[in-house]
Amino acid sequence: GSKQSNPKLRKFGLMLIGAQLAFIALFAVFVQYDWDALPVSLRSLSHQPSRTYRATHNDTAELTAVGLDPRLQQVKYPLRDYFSMYGDIQIMIFLAFGLFIACFKRYGYSATGMAFMLCAFIVQWSTLVHGFFHLTPDNTINLSLITLISADFTIAAVLISTCVLLGTLSPLQYIVLALIEVVVYAGNEWLCLSVLRVVDVGGAIYLHTFAAYFGLAVAFVLNRRTKECLKSLKGLTASSYFNELLAFLGTILLFIYWPSFNSVFAPADLQQRAVINTALALLASSLATFAMSAIVFKEKFSMTVIQNGALAGGVAIGSTADLMIQPYAALMIGFAAGTLTVIGFKFIAPVLEERWKLLDMCGVQYLHGLPGLFAGLVSALVCGIAKDETYGSSYWEAFPAAVPPDNSSAYQKLLVEYPALKPGFGRTPWMQAGFQVLALLVSVLIAMVSGLVTGLLLKLSVFDPIKPAEMLCDDELWLMPKELSEDQEAS
Amino acid sequence: GSKQSNPKLRKFGLMLIGAQLAFIALFAVFVQYDWDALPVSLRSLSHQPSRTYRATHNDTAELTAVGLDPRLQQVKYPLRDYFSMYGDIQIMIFLAFGLFIACFKRYGYSATGMAFMLCAFIVQWSTLVHGFFHLTPDNTINLSLITLISADFTIAAVLISTCVLLGTLSPLQYIVLALIEVVVYAGNEWLCLSVLRVVDVGGAIYLHTFAAYFGLAVAFVLNRRTKECLKSLKGLTASSYFNELLAFLGTILLFIYWPSFNSVFAPADLQQRAVINTALALLASSLATFAMSAIVFKEKFSMTVIQNGALAGGVAIGSTADLMIQPYAALMIGFAAGTLTVIGFKFIAPVLEERWKLLDMCGVQYLHGLPGLFAGLVSALVCGIAKDETYGSSYWEAFPAAVPPDNSSAYQKLLVEYPALKPGFGRTPWMQAGFQVLALLVSVLIAMVSGLVTGLLLKLSVFDPIKPAEMLCDDELWLMPKELSEDQEAS
Amino acid sequence: GSKQSNPKLRKFGLMLIGAQLAFIALFAVFVQYDWDALPVSLRSLSHQPSRTYRATHNDTAELTAVGLDPRLQQVKYPLRDYFSMYGDIQIMIFLAFGLFIACFKRYGYSATGMAFMLCAFIVQWSTLVHGFFHLTPDNTINLSLITLISADFTIAAVLISTCVLLGTLSPLQYIVLALIEVVVYAGNEWLCLSVLRVVDVGGAIYLHTFAAYFGLAVAFVLNRRTKECLKSLKGLTASSYFNELLAFLGTILLFIYWPSFNSVFAPADLQQRAVINTALALLASSLATFAMSAIVFKEKFSMTVIQNGALAGGVAIGSTADLMIQPYAALMIGFAAGTLTVIGFKFIAPVLEERWKLLDMCGVQYLHGLPGLFAGLVSALVCGIAKDETYGSSYWEAFPAAVPPDNSSAYQKLLVEYPALKPGFGRTPWMQAGFQVLALLVSVLIAMVSGLVTGLLLKLSVFDPIKPAEMLCDDELWLMPKELSEDQEAS
Repeated sequence: GSKQSNPKLRKFGLMLIGAQLAFIALFAVFVQYDWDALPVSLRSLSHQPSRTYRATHNDTAELTAVGLDPRLQQVKYPLRDYFSMYGDIQIMIFLAFGLFIACFKRYGYSATGMAFMLCAFIVQWSTLVHGFFHLTPDNTINLSLITLISADFTIAAVLISTCVLLGTLSPLQYIVLALIEVVVYAGNEWLCLSVLRVVDVGGAIYLHTFAAYFGLAVAFVLNRRTKECLKSLKGLTASSYFNELLAFLGTILLFIYWPSFNSVFAPADLQQRAVINTALALLASSLATFAMSAIVFKEKFSMTVIQNGALAGGVAIGSTADLMIQPYAALMIGFAAGTLTVIGFKFIAPVLEERWKLLDMCGVQYLHGLPGLFAGLVSALVCGIAKDETYGSSYWEAFPAAVPPDNSSAYQKLLVEYPALKPGFGRTPWMQAGFQVLALLVSVLIAMVSGLVTGLLLKLSVFDPIKPAEMLCDDELWLMPKELSEDQEAS
Repeated sequence: GSKQSNPKLRKFGLMLIGAQLAFIALFAVFVQYDWDALPVSLRSLSHQPSRTYRATHNDTAELTAVGLDPRLQQVKYPLRDYFSMYGDIQIMIFLAFGLFIACFKRYGYSATGMAFMLCAFIVQWSTLVHGFFHLTPDNTINLSLITLISADFTIAAVLISTCVLLGTLSPLQYIVLALIEVVVYAGNEWLCLSVLRVVDVGGAIYLHTFAAYFGLAVAFVLNRRTKECLKSLKGLTASSYFNELLAFLGTILLFIYWPSFNSVFAPADLQQRAVINTALALLASSLATFAMSAIVFKEKFSMTVIQNGALAGGVAIGSTADLMIQPYAALMIGFAAGTLTVIGFKFIAPVLEERWKLLDMCGVQYLHGLPGLFAGLVSALVCGIAKDETYGSSYWEAFPAAVPPDNSSAYQKLLVEYPALKPGFGRTPWMQAGFQVLALLVSVLIAMVSGLVTGLLLKLSVFDPIKPAEMLCDDELWLMPKELSEDQEAS
Repeated sequence: GSKQSNPKLRKFGLMLIGAQLAFIALFAVFVQYDWDALPVSLRSLSHQPSRTYRATHNDTAELTAVGLDPRLQQVKYPLRDYFSMYGDIQIMIFLAFGLFIACFKRYGYSATGMAFMLCAFIVQWSTLVHGFFHLTPDNTINLSLITLISADFTIAAVLISTCVLLGTLSPLQYIVLALIEVVVYAGNEWLCLSVLRVVDVGGAIYLHTFAAYFGLAVAFVLNRRTKECLKSLKGLTASSYFNELLAFLGTILLFIYWPSFNSVFAPADLQQRAVINTALALLASSLATFAMSAIVFKEKFSMTVIQNGALAGGVAIGSTADLMIQPYAALMIGFAAGTLTVIGFKFIAPVLEERWKLLDMCGVQYLHGLPGLFAGLVSALVCGIAKDETYGSSYWEAFPAAVPPDNSSAYQKLLVEYPALKPGFGRTPWMQAGFQVLALLVSVLIAMVSGLVTGLLLKLSVFDPIKPAEMLCDDELWLMPKELSEDQEAS
């Protein structure tokens, strides 16, 4: 009916207004500007960033530099350090991801539109949730570019999960999923980075692996490849020439800015390595994807496979990008990841689809799941074989948990050379390797359990689950330009 | 006819060549590189930037920092400070705006093409016009990244105005409109920033509000929603699936880089706040737009409304982004702006269209007009309640007109603490609030009067006004790919 | 046949795997992180960048600045200097170029896909080839952001050449062409920059001119405008409305980031000028293209001409962007370049196509060839009339070959003022002008000879040259969305 009110949309609207008003109220009570956005005279020492990968890792060079002249502190705004990369990451999350998933013929508006809506929701929600995990001594949440970048990482996790479910959720389900996943993700991130002290600068373990298996677990409960489902999706899972080119545009944007994502929270020379290693891994995975596609798929290239394989290197290098792995190893990791994605699409996908009836709409398993697991295992190896002399003065920055504990004499000795060093646990390389594997297992486990529960919850009729016939349909949600609606009536 | 010469195009071409040659001549006489693009040995103290918001606002922290070591001056190139944001703003103005207005089915080439042509014209023209308002003591115009960014602000104003008129102007009319509006805009900007000393870091008052009502005034004279007009526009105001996705891509780019636009001219911690507040306002206006759309439009989402509402927060926070409004207030302002846009499209548009016969092609009234007015009123309130203790050392940077006048003893006392402080007028907070409202009224008044005159001028047949039948038609101006022209012949 | 194996694709795949494995092996033996990506304690003085335009040009201001405090060296990461521009250039090369050539109706996938594949291949290959031209004393190749930017320059050269041949090469031929051209390009670059000490900050001579004539020479041998060829290309050289808009999007991205390309390797105030002059030249060439198109093509605008002409200014200013040419001269150079492109398309193209049967698929002659030659001649003039007093302290930075030779007393005297100055050849301005022309001739000559040889080689059947009937066809190489393949069967 063309002028009737849509009660589901109304419910969604009221829910969203409620959420936004709640965010405003919670921001009013808890959130204040971090020190860099405060007038110099109003800054206090309680305004120290305390929330990110960089905070759990030492940054001795920078700390020495600041020591040069305390007056520099006044004008050393992180804006200068973070702003350029913040823009890059915003492009990845808000724009490129939306394009990347705009590949379906009749789901371009919803894919980009719902992704954008989720972005706007999650930045606010993630700021609050992350903030509660890292409250300042005076019970406030400090807001800065670093907070906003952390929020973008959170969005990445949720969008990866919704990728599995693309086109199978109602607007209300999207929001409920985000509401839950942000909390679980923040908990898992805190567990991995602050408790297990895992080395994972680009989030291959706590972000990509977690998000992939969370999404797959939700899908396992919520939607299966039943005959009814496949019948109603027939034709809709096809891409169009134009949507596929937009998706490729998104792919290239992700490719270009991925080094910023993997390096933004790394200090000093670790950041330089993270940029270079990520760039190399992406190059090799792209080339491997073209090569392996040519061999494995035999007849022709598939845009979908190329798009996913090109980016697999960025995931696979995610936990080791800032380490001293040498350029050739970055190429090897990328090569393996691209190969893995192609093999996944060719040989593993049919099995999961036929036998497990798994409905993975965008192949998240092969871009985030398997490459994420691979990244975790690689990081265990790289941490295990790490040598003091290879890392030189950056050893304590790269492996903060290897720093001796607070009260040890070894720690006191190190303090002489690195006065800003935070105490650790005195882990040996292979102990760190064990923690890498542990974090990987923990992330998968938490993802699967919470994903299954979330899936069951989303099935409740109060959240308006959609029928197979409404899946992958822009028309259900958006006013469409004439041409298409006519087109559709005709067919 | 398919090979005939087009006398109107010829006239436009000659006019453009004349303009370009005149620009070259005027540049040869007046324009030189600013100090940062000159060899160190050739710099003089007359090479000081003197043209922007930042120039009328104090920047005490930076000035202190430079004081650390005069030799730093040699290598402190603004390129480092401005370049990243310059790129962001270029993307907004040259690319995203063009995409944003590429929404009409048959006007994609002209919308992006004419916008690009206007950009190339206005950067040069604006450099000269702004330069004449701020000549150096030796009667030259200094050219730097700051000049180029100012020119991008000017382009934004003209493109906003042409948005109202999209598809209803001939190439010659586009150029004439730009020729006039740049002069009026520069005058109004000078009046608001240098004379009235208004607080308006992102130009909500002197740019968005001005541009919206200038364009609407031109449209009021030039094109009305007559029956003939509506008949010939029938079908053409429809978007296509593909154009609408490009427009959404433009929307997201504007969303991502708007914080750069609102903060580029703010100093130190004011810049940090401008980035964060703008980001927050945009998030809230996006969420509000989805929510309000769901409730007000009832049945489905409209891409046009989502696109406009998502950005309304950036306009609405434009005058207060750098002030100490606190994060929750930024969310509130964004929430109100998004709501305002949705209500505008739903309830105000029909009235203006039916009763006033106003032809606002892109809904400029609801993205720039009303949110701009709202921004101005909000800024009056924020300035009025500003307290010394809230702003601390940044009080004089945020409110330069509050600095006591030159010869007062209060000013002498302040100079001891802030040696670089420029004298002001000793305004109280509520006096500043009054000036905010005054600037808002002045901007609307100047816009409307000059817009009406410009509209009358553009009606002259010498500027080749186009007939309703030629409106929104790429085919009039561009060689079209076969498919489409065939398509059109058929229909 | 729809499920048969494609032996050509298989050969291409194996070749690519071989290349990637060889790259990994060579990287393992030769490539290490440059000093900025190494831990501070492991850096040695042999880690000095030694490979780029900036290395052959003096950078006195920067060197003085670094001299302020040796401890700064620890935290002065080129990441800060180069990262923002690196991102810009990546967008140009990996994204915008692909869009720019996505203009053909049925070759969008291949144009963007093959360009992307070449990018991934060339970064690795170029790093090795350039590295061998600039081995460190301990026979290693240092990898940094500077290396990656140099690789992007190399990609630009190869993509320009393949533009001439767009749609006429098989995947294997693309790779073989890249394999050869990268070596010749690196040799020519080394000859121009390190031996002839040419002034060419944006590569108009050693990159654009070289690449254009290399590609044209290959095309001259490989594909001619025979009747058979023209017959099979009929309809395919047409653009579609949508592809053309994507190409325009690519044009605008190139326009926006071109200043980064032309300035990335220039030091200090030379960099500021390079940014400003490039921006101005592009503005004037854009305006000139609209104006001249309106006059010369008479009836309507052509998207192709506008796209090429808009960018001609960036090529034409490529050799002089960092010099003291004054803003008006930058506008003049751009104006001339835009005019040249329009005239090229209108009057020269028909002659080359009819009489020489040259098949220049994208008009590379008019965007890179002629404007490149023009840029070289302009640079000779600008170098010839360069005056000591105009350049002040930047004279030795802009013209490093003008520095007196090592053992001269003049050099010793200069060393007092500029302690970091590298010795030159004591060239006079008009001697430098001569070397500019020499480099231009050498570049064209090397390009043509190596291009002809490469063309002959590519004709060998082992490289799977494609038949005219397979040209410009995505369908040969890519799995296509249903709609199109149906569409095609019908027609």
